Amino acid sequence: MDLHTLNTLNYEEFFEHFGNIVEKCPLISGAVWSRRPFSSALELESSVYEFIDSLPSSGQEGILRCHPDLAGKELISRTLTQESMKEQNQAGLTSLSQSERETLTLLNSQYKLKFGFPFVICAKMSDKNKIIEALRSRIQNDRVEELGTGIAEVKKICHLRLQDIFFKTCPTRL
Amino acid sequence: MDLHTLNTLNYEEFFEHFGNIVEKCPLISGAVWSRRPFSSALELESSVYEFIDSLPSSGQEGILRCHPDLAGKELISRTLTQESMKEQNQAGLTSLSQSERETLTLLNSQYKLKFGFPFVICAKMSDKNKIIEALRSRIQNDRVEELGTGIAEVKKICHLRLQDIFFKTCPTRL
Repeated sequence: MDLHTLNTLNYEEFFEHFGNIVEKCPLISGAVWSRRPFSSALELESSVYEFIDSLPSSGQEGILRCHPDLAGKELISRTLTQESMKEQNQAGLTSLSQSERETLTLLNSQYKLKFGFPFVICAKMSDKNKIIEALRSRIQNDRVEELGTGIAEVKKICHLRLQDIFFKTCPTRL
Repeated sequence: MDLHTLNTLNYEEFFEHFGNIVEKCPLISGAVWSRRPFSSALELESSVYEFIDSLPSSGQEGILRCHPDLAGKELISRTLTQESMKEQNQAGLTSLSQSERETLTLLNSQYKLKFGFPFVICAKMSDKNKIIEALRSRIQNDRVEELGTGIAEVKKICHLRLQDIFFKTCPTRL
């Protein structure tokens, strides 16, 4: 996909490629389509980040709440989005020992109880041990700090999903 | 469900009931959960509308783009959300004649080409003839006017979905 093609996609075609660059938030992809033409892939990415940053904190919390737990019930029931499945698999979350799974389940519950949103981390940039370590550490944060950290992770996930999309069809990224 | 129960739902339980009150926009439901406790069902509804109104026009266009075409490919491939399926069925869109379907497909395409978002109407408050008539009329509007009309229809759909949720489990609504 070259830049010209990106800019000629109608919104339905755009959704097919970019509908889940932020987990279960097609609203954001739909909003960003309004910003075309893009002068680069980076501009598309920046538009996503700007949109996220423009939301009130309730909206940013809403984004986090659209994310599944790591090694949670959606993984077990195989109802994760394709992207999330791939990411959790790559971080080793599909092959946890019983004890690791129990630890993660307990920490996830404590985290959600404290903050009212799930623990979000860019699993692809991590592994199961680092994820458990990060959970133990981040659960100590205050709510405002943790909302910021969660949203920063959403952006990292988005960055890698965009890379995947461009890399799949274009050996040199836009 | 009484008011006390509504206010004690954690965000995951809230999503189970209210995750699709705005079509394919769980971000909005997730954002609104931050506003609890609600003093009434009306306050929950108002919070949704306030959130929608607070979005930039690109975000409101994003909401419209999350909506399926009426009698479109999702209806044919049976990939509509449960709520949308019920609404399109009730408006008679599942039993169109070939000529009605062709008319609707053509008008939907012209509409999307002109505005860059789909034609959204509260199908449950309408029927197939009125829908075709409204499409013919609204396609004449300018873009700003039509964005406003589309968002007003999103709110009507949300209102009826909320009524359905409360009415299903509580004979007198909150």
